[in-house]
Amino acid sequence: MFLTRTEYDRGVNTFSPEGRLFQVEYAIEAIKLGSTAIGLKTKDGVVLAVEKRITSPLLEPSSVEKIMEIDEHIGCAMSGLIADARTLVEHARVETQNHRFSYGEPMTVESTTQALCDLALRFGEGDEESMSRPFGVSLLIAGHDENGTSLYYTDPSGTFWQCNAKAIGSGSEGADSSLQEQYNKDLTLQEAETIALSILKQVMEEKVTPNNVDIARVAPTYHLYTPSEVEAVITRL
Amino acid sequence: MFLTRTEYDRGVNTFSPEGRLFQVEYAIEAIKLGSTAIGLKTKDGVVLAVEKRITSPLLEPSSVEKIMEIDEHIGCAMSGLIADARTLVEHARVETQNHRFSYGEPMTVESTTQALCDLALRFGEGDEESMSRPFGVSLLIAGHDENGTSLYYTDPSGTFWQCNAKAIGSGSEGADSSLQEQYNKDLTLQEAETIALSILKQVMEEKVTPNNVDIARVAPTYHLYTPSEVEAVITRL
Amino acid sequence: MFLTRTEYDRGVNTFSPEGRLFQVEYAIEAIKLGSTAIGLKTKDGVVLAVEKRITSPLLEPSSVEKIMEIDEHIGCAMSGLIADARTLVEHARVETQNHRFSYGEPMTVESTTQALCDLALRFGEGDEESMSRPFGVSLLIAGHDENGTSLYYTDPSGTFWQCNAKAIGSGSEGADSSLQEQYNKDLTLQEAETIALSILKQVMEEKVTPNNVDIARVAPTYHLYTPSEVEAVITRL
Amino acid sequence: MFLTRTEYDRGVNTFSPEGRLFQVEYAIEAIKLGSTAIGLKTKDGVVLAVEKRITSPLLEPSSVEKIMEIDEHIGCAMSGLIADARTLVEHARVETQNHRFSYGEPMTVESTTQALCDLALRFGEGDEESMSRPFGVSLLIAGHDENGTSLYYTDPSGTFWQCNAKAIGSGSEGADSSLQEQYNKDLTLQEAETIALSILKQVMEEKVTPNNVDIARVAPTYHLYTPSEVEAVITRL
Amino acid sequence: MFLTRTEYDRGVNTFSPEGRLFQVEYAIEAIKLGSTAIGLKTKDGVVLAVEKRITSPLLEPSSVEKIMEIDEHIGCAMSGLIADARTLVEHARVETQNHRFSYGEPMTVESTTQALCDLALRFGEGDEESMSRPFGVSLLIAGHDENGTSLYYTDPSGTFWQCNAKAIGSGSEGADSSLQEQYNKDLTLQEAETIALSILKQVMEEKVTPNNVDIARVAPTYHLYTPSEVEAVITRL
Amino acid sequence: MFLTRTEYDRGVNTFSPEGRLFQVEYAIEAIKLGSTAIGLKTKDGVVLAVEKRITSPLLEPSSVEKIMEIDEHIGCAMSGLIADARTLVEHARVETQNHRFSYGEPMTVESTTQALCDLALRFGEGDEESMSRPFGVSLLIAGHDENGTSLYYTDPSGTFWQCNAKAIGSGSEGADSSLQEQYNKDLTLQEAETIALSILKQVMEEKVTPNNVDIARVAPTYHLYTPSEVEAVITRL
Amino acid sequence: MFLTRTEYDRGVNTFSPEGRLFQVEYAIEAIKLGSTAIGLKTKDGVVLAVEKRITSPLLEPSSVEKIMEIDEHIGCAMSGLIADARTLVEHARVETQNHRFSYGEPMTVESTTQALCDLALRFGEGDEESMSRPFGVSLLIAGHDENGTSLYYTDPSGTFWQCNAKAIGSGSEGADSSLQEQYNKDLTLQEAETIALSILKQVMEEKVTPNNVDIARVAPTYHLYTPSEVEAVITRL
Repeated sequence: MFLTRTEYDRGVNTFSPEGRLFQVEYAIEAIKLGSTAIGLKTKDGVVLAVEKRITSPLLEPSSVEKIMEIDEHIGCAMSGLIADARTLVEHARVETQNHRFSYGEPMTVESTTQALCDLALRFGEGDEESMSRPFGVSLLIAGHDENGTSLYYTDPSGTFWQCNAKAIGSGSEGADSSLQEQYNKDLTLQEAETIALSILKQVMEEKVTPNNVDIARVAPTYHLYTPSEVEAVITRL
Repeated sequence: MFLTRTEYDRGVNTFSPEGRLFQVEYAIEAIKLGSTAIGLKTKDGVVLAVEKRITSPLLEPSSVEKIMEIDEHIGCAMSGLIADARTLVEHARVETQNHRFSYGEPMTVESTTQALCDLALRFGEGDEESMSRPFGVSLLIAGHDENGTSLYYTDPSGTFWQCNAKAIGSGSEGADSSLQEQYNKDLTLQEAETIALSILKQVMEEKVTPNNVDIARVAPTYHLYTPSEVEAVITRL
Repeated sequence: MFLTRTEYDRGVNTFSPEGRLFQVEYAIEAIKLGSTAIGLKTKDGVVLAVEKRITSPLLEPSSVEKIMEIDEHIGCAMSGLIADARTLVEHARVETQNHRFSYGEPMTVESTTQALCDLALRFGEGDEESMSRPFGVSLLIAGHDENGTSLYYTDPSGTFWQCNAKAIGSGSEGADSSLQEQYNKDLTLQEAETIALSILKQVMEEKVTPNNVDIARVAPTYHLYTPSEVEAVITRL
Repeated sequence: MFLTRTEYDRGVNTFSPEGRLFQVEYAIEAIKLGSTAIGLKTKDGVVLAVEKRITSPLLEPSSVEKIMEIDEHIGCAMSGLIADARTLVEHARVETQNHRFSYGEPMTVESTTQALCDLALRFGEGDEESMSRPFGVSLLIAGHDENGTSLYYTDPSGTFWQCNAKAIGSGSEGADSSLQEQYNKDLTLQEAETIALSILKQVMEEKVTPNNVDIARVAPTYHLYTPSEVEAVITRL
Repeated sequence: MFLTRTEYDRGVNTFSPEGRLFQVEYAIEAIKLGSTAIGLKTKDGVVLAVEKRITSPLLEPSSVEKIMEIDEHIGCAMSGLIADARTLVEHARVETQNHRFSYGEPMTVESTTQALCDLALRFGEGDEESMSRPFGVSLLIAGHDENGTSLYYTDPSGTFWQCNAKAIGSGSEGADSSLQEQYNKDLTLQEAETIALSILKQVMEEKVTPNNVDIARVAPTYHLYTPSEVEAVITRL
Repeated sequence: MFLTRTEYDRGVNTFSPEGRLFQVEYAIEAIKLGSTAIGLKTKDGVVLAVEKRITSPLLEPSSVEKIMEIDEHIGCAMSGLIADARTLVEHARVETQNHRFSYGEPMTVESTTQALCDLALRFGEGDEESMSRPFGVSLLIAGHDENGTSLYYTDPSGTFWQCNAKAIGSGSEGADSSLQEQYNKDLTLQEAETIALSILKQVMEEKVTPNNVDIARVAPTYHLYTPSEVEAVITRL
Repeated sequence: MFLTRTEYDRGVNTFSPEGRLFQVEYAIEAIKLGSTAIGLKTKDGVVLAVEKRITSPLLEPSSVEKIMEIDEHIGCAMSGLIADARTLVEHARVETQNHRFSYGEPMTVESTTQALCDLALRFGEGDEESMSRPFGVSLLIAGHDENGTSLYYTDPSGTFWQCNAKAIGSGSEGADSSLQEQYNKDLTLQEAETIALSILKQVMEEKVTPNNVDIARVAPTYHLYTPSEVEAVITRL
């Protein structure tokens, strides 16, 4: 059984007899090893919160970036291989800047997400920009455009979905259940911050501090919380 | 027996001793894992209906797109890998726009379908546009042109057929039987909507709601039903 | 024995120790799975007849094309992978149109057949036009040119032969025997139609109707029979 | 022993531990499966004679070409894969025409043979003109130039030899012995025809007729015998 | 278990079923075989110290370079394959010089580190600049720019972190523990030199001399210590 | 032991664990299967003598070329794959002609030999001119230039040596011993001819005749002996 | 154990699980099969001495070149595959000539060594100049430039070190020990010659003669000793 499986998935991007793409499934496993990230959409904006694994007290916490700005109206949280995520974010930054330059207006959140997924889908094809394997990363993309506020979730297969709330990474299973219980469409931005951080707290093995979590909002522009802003949310828990 | 099989199909696009192309067969398996989609041709237009798998209540139903517009006179429903389908649809959109630009008239439905299948056939050849594996998706292409209304069905081998009615995806076997019993050439568009949705209802594991099905028609232009229009069809069941 | 065989044929286009090209042999197996097609040359023209497998009553019979026009003086019947055949036919259409444009006269039937076989021979070579595997299709090419009427038969190895009568596909063995018994050089076109259809009838598992067979002639131009013309031949049986 | 062998020859063009090139040896096996061809050089010209395997009475014998003209002063007989031979002959035709165009005189028989072998040697190198495997064909090249009459024999390794008489194909072993017994330098063209055909007769399993053998001569220009000319030779036996 | 592992990691840059990239993990093993290097950030500048393995008394110690200047405001210490490190450093030198030329100001330390990691991430992709395997080297990058002093740590996966203090190479585990005990943010540059060398002394198997260690600082410009400056630090221990 | 060996040498140009290049060693085996060739340098010029294997009395002996002219001052004898040797000789002919054209003087013998070996060394690299495997041939290159007379010996690894006398091919071992006994620097050209032929005679299985040996000299220009000149040497034995 | 090893090293340039690059290690084995070479740096210049294996008395000793000039101020001794070394030396010669042409001054010894190692490092990458495997050669590079006299040692991994004295090849282990005992910085050039040759004598299996050793010096320009100069050193032993 196991042997058969090993026979099929060595071709980077080929189907198994059951119609599965193993390299994509394995990349999804890579994300299950990653730190947890949570996104919530409210009527006033989107909140992103991530766990940062600080493996040594000598590491500079602010250099462990798991929430990044794509454009002033779009940010994203990530789980999985950080170096892969940086490549995707850099690609999205170029796309959004090109769009602003060509059309004189910001790129929509959906177009930005589609551009990211187009790159993710084309792995194993020897193009200049594409990777020789799937990108081992999931993103939560938060943005605000003419259609209002939105939250997208992407996976290594190049598929994306729009969500009201979503968790990714090693603690995503428990976190998703909690989100379903606690989410409603009338949450304020402040309530969303509190829910995100309280759920992160449950799935993290250590005490939550401004050093080991990051919070950001797009409401309607991207803002990464300062340590004291994070501290304020922690205090509210 | 099984071992022998594994020997042959690792070459992405080569024949087995029995004259079979396994990667294409495996891609067809991928579609059997997909959600069900149904198409019916009437004298007044074509109806497309799809099941949407909403895995979480926090997912935005409208972002799970399984029926897409190709041009104003052509739409398609899909089953299988959604990211693959998006690539095919994007390709078809460019082809139909180029045709309008070059000839000042809409592309016929058959030419559009042929263009999609040409791309699907050339997998594993290292071209810029082609994939390194078969596209893991089947399409139901509904359109209206100077030859009237038509419904095409494509599979991962790059073959296509014209049909009066067709179901694809995990529930296709049962749905096709029901279609053969209930289809006749004199159906009105409204009767076709009712049949499509009643068959979808049989193969779906949950209650049909405007959230978990999509309906569209090409009659003679493409229109995706609003939730209330879907609700109206559900009420008629 | 069998294992040894699997060792050699994974290189797409390499010889086995006995001097065989297995991928070509496997492609020939693909044709043995295909529907039956028959061609007869008479002094007045060539008749082509094919079985069409209509797997569902909801399939549009006319969209299952197994006889196609290449140029107004050349047509072909096919057995095997239809998507592969379409690529070959499309190639031949371009070649014959280019020839008309460059020389102001129709391309001969032999040159057209040679052009098709050149493309078929070059599989596995990474050219832009060639396939990564043999074309899994056999063709019966019927035509009329300055040398009179002719019927060619091609196989996946890129070899071609001129014939008086030939059957290809799953029922070809029995059909070829019947052709040898019934063929003579003085057949009229009408007698050839009757022989072709009566032999198809023997190898088909279902009743012959205008829906599940197609007939065409090149005499001296290509003409695909209408359902009522087919019906007339059936009545004569 | 056998296993070891399979280990080495899968690289299309690599040496085995004993210094052998298996793909070339396997291609030579392909020729041993082919029909027999015979060439004899006389002081008046060269005679080529081949067996044609007519697998069906409905096959047009003249379309089974195993002797072809390269230029008006050069012809060749072949055994092995006919589609491969056509590619080589087509290449030689272009070379000889280019030579005539550039230098205003016919290409010599040796240069033409060398050009064919250069192409044959370079298999497995990904060039535009070269094949991904050895050409599975042997040629007997008969010609006449400023050095008089000559007969060359080529094999799939790209090597060539000049001969007085030579047989290739499945019956070559017995035919070569007979040639050594019966050949002498003072044969007339007519005696050579008779010897060639009488030897072919011995190795063929069926009765010799104008339908299943072809004869040609280069004396000093290429001429393929008409059926009645062949009949005349048969009668002399 | 072990066998399965060998099945997956031969693809240079593909995921294992558990979502791991083995070639990157193996490259990290290469670093564990390397000599130890230590970096400490103080408010006055960064100190780098490395062990040099002088395998023979006839080797010129100064030619074993394990600390190199990238630009006048950036230096780096390395552990792993020295030839790989030289390629990365050369790449960074070109990038920083280009930046100075284009913008008239020094490149920031983070941008320089990002440029190094972009190159490291793209292994196995056949680009002109990228390697066919991961770079088998870790770097400690010390620099000073408009944001003050900083110390970055990179690994073969193309990921980087900002640190206050970090050890790499065969003795990194013990050295990291010692650094956590002894590091505080108020260290002077001289105290940092002493700590770095005392920790190196613990993990080295031989007596520390100016021949077998190198020390450098960026405070705020890069300076590699002369043997007598190193001797002075040794004396302070 | 043997199995291990098969594991390593399938990469065309990679080292085995013992630091060996098996494909080169196997190519050297190919030469041990070849016919014997001998070269002797005298103060008056160089003599080359080769065995020709005439497998059939109907083969034209003069078409079995194992000694070839490169330029008027350089000739070479060969053992191994004749088609490979032709490619090398053709390459050398182009190089020497280009040199004459560019510099107005003949290319030196060493430069010509180096040019041949550069091509031989680069096998397996996908260049236009290089082979996908080592050239399976050894050459004895005899020449005369401004430095006087010289004899070079090349092997498939691309290495070359200057010799006073050397034998290659299946009989090289015994022939080399005989050469060491009989060679001295004061031989006349005629004595060298006699020695070369008498040694060839020992290693050949059949009687020496002008048909089965070739002799050439470079003294100071290349000259291939006519049958009667060869006959004269045989008579002297 | 051994089997596992064979699994990993077939990828030409990939890490093993222990972080090793086997092809580089195997190339180093190739050098251990090579002849011994020795280099000594004195205040007056560098001495290089090599063993030449003259396998046959008929071989011209001066054609076995194991010490070569790169530029007038740089020479090198080599051990391993001579054809590989020639490629590296040729590359270095072009680099040093280009440098002289561009900058009007000689290239430094370190830059020349770095240029050689850059080429050595990039094996297996399909570049025009790089090899498909590591270069199987070690070099001792002796030179003199504005920084005085220097001796570099390179290995197949592309790493280099500066040394006072170094031995490479099959006898390097014993020779290195002897060098450590006998070397001091105040040696005269003549003493260095004597030491080099006396150590070579110990590791060689045959008597030292001007035929089987070569000596060269860079002091400050490259000079290869004549047989009588070598004889003079031998006499001094």
